[in-house]
Amino acid sequence: MRLAELSRRSGVSTATIKYYLRERLLPPGHQINATTAEYDEEHLRRLRLVRAMIQVGRVPVAKVREVLGHVDDDSLGRTIRLGAAMWALPQVPEPDEDDEFVQAAEQEVITLLDRLGWENTKRLTTISSAYRSLVVAMAALRRIGYDWEAELLEPYAELMHRAAVLDLNLLETQPSEAERIEFAVLGAILIEPVLQALHRLAQEEETTRRYGFE
Amino acid sequence: MRLAELSRRSGVSTATIKYYLRERLLPPGHQINATTAEYDEEHLRRLRLVRAMIQVGRVPVAKVREVLGHVDDDSLGRTIRLGAAMWALPQVPEPDEDDEFVQAAEQEVITLLDRLGWENTKRLTTISSAYRSLVVAMAALRRIGYDWEAELLEPYAELMHRAAVLDLNLLETQPSEAERIEFAVLGAILIEPVLQALHRLAQEEETTRRYGFE
Repeated sequence: MRLAELSRRSGVSTATIKYYLRERLLPPGHQINATTAEYDEEHLRRLRLVRAMIQVGRVPVAKVREVLGHVDDDSLGRTIRLGAAMWALPQVPEPDEDDEFVQAAEQEVITLLDRLGWENTKRLTTISSAYRSLVVAMAALRRIGYDWEAELLEPYAELMHRAAVLDLNLLETQPSEAERIEFAVLGAILIEPVLQALHRLAQEEETTRRYGFE
Repeated sequence: MRLAELSRRSGVSTATIKYYLRERLLPPGHQINATTAEYDEEHLRRLRLVRAMIQVGRVPVAKVREVLGHVDDDSLGRTIRLGAAMWALPQVPEPDEDDEFVQAAEQEVITLLDRLGWENTKRLTTISSAYRSLVVAMAALRRIGYDWEAELLEPYAELMHRAAVLDLNLLETQPSEAERIEFAVLGAILIEPVLQALHRLAQEEETTRRYGFE
């Protein structure tokens, strides 16, 4: 298809597509002659991914390029590619290891992983941004006086594990490996706001069931 | 206790406490004489809530005052107070009702609520910010070509309902009604980052279980 059709089918303006091409977020079209290039379904799919990251995820352009580099590097194994793509997304700052609240939170998170039997995750603590996020969130709670124990978090972690099983089942329905990797990136950006909204809606439902409407 | 002790026990500087007092985020102490005021456990608890909103939730001071107004208004019923406190937190922008993606998303969310049997939530759609958030998130997905159906969201919604049951069970362990209302506000600010981190950790665990470490 020509640029005009790519624009029509994607809903992205031709000016924006040209910008993405210049920034190498989209591979060049197949040049037919000096002034005309042809685009295919893969361009359309990549355009959708780029838009999701930039418009919905508000990921900076340089970061998008970095994520796409991991997505496209098929010399890597699947877990590494899935992980590398996620790890390139916006990160929490490194926790301060000298902080007493961080140390206590880390202790509690390790206890949680032991209780859950998440042995694989325990091997990844030094490189996992999810692990760092949890330590930072728990340390923030401790700093204002909420010393939440692993026992309290365990049922939440089990629910989130079921959500992860749904995520990966969904991912495995994607037809090609490239699409599965892309789906993982989209999932991180797009599923999380949906889950958060569902959680709040469920809180409203449960609150009104228990206490009525007043 | 005196201001110095309130500062020591809360970990908040006296300058910041004085600022919160001036901004009426903290009720005045009990004046003993012209220069000395006495503070109690309720001040300490309120200080913790204010810090959580400002430091962790990054809620603006004017909004904090508004939320506290709802928390303290015991003329309202429990559901209204719980809801009002949450509704005063940062909101998604109003969805554009003329947008075709918003209309389609709304249709799908209503179908989801029907499938789930969340009758109470259906009655609240005109005032619920969680409902608006979900419509906005689903419309964003549709805009980039993901027409997720109610059927796909249903198992996620069921998991989030179980999380909401855990939330409210935890809320009900709080000793007084004032503390239960405060806990609801804290929950919205503090539990969500923890759930998000747990979800990502669970994804890592499940990914490595299925595909190994490479």
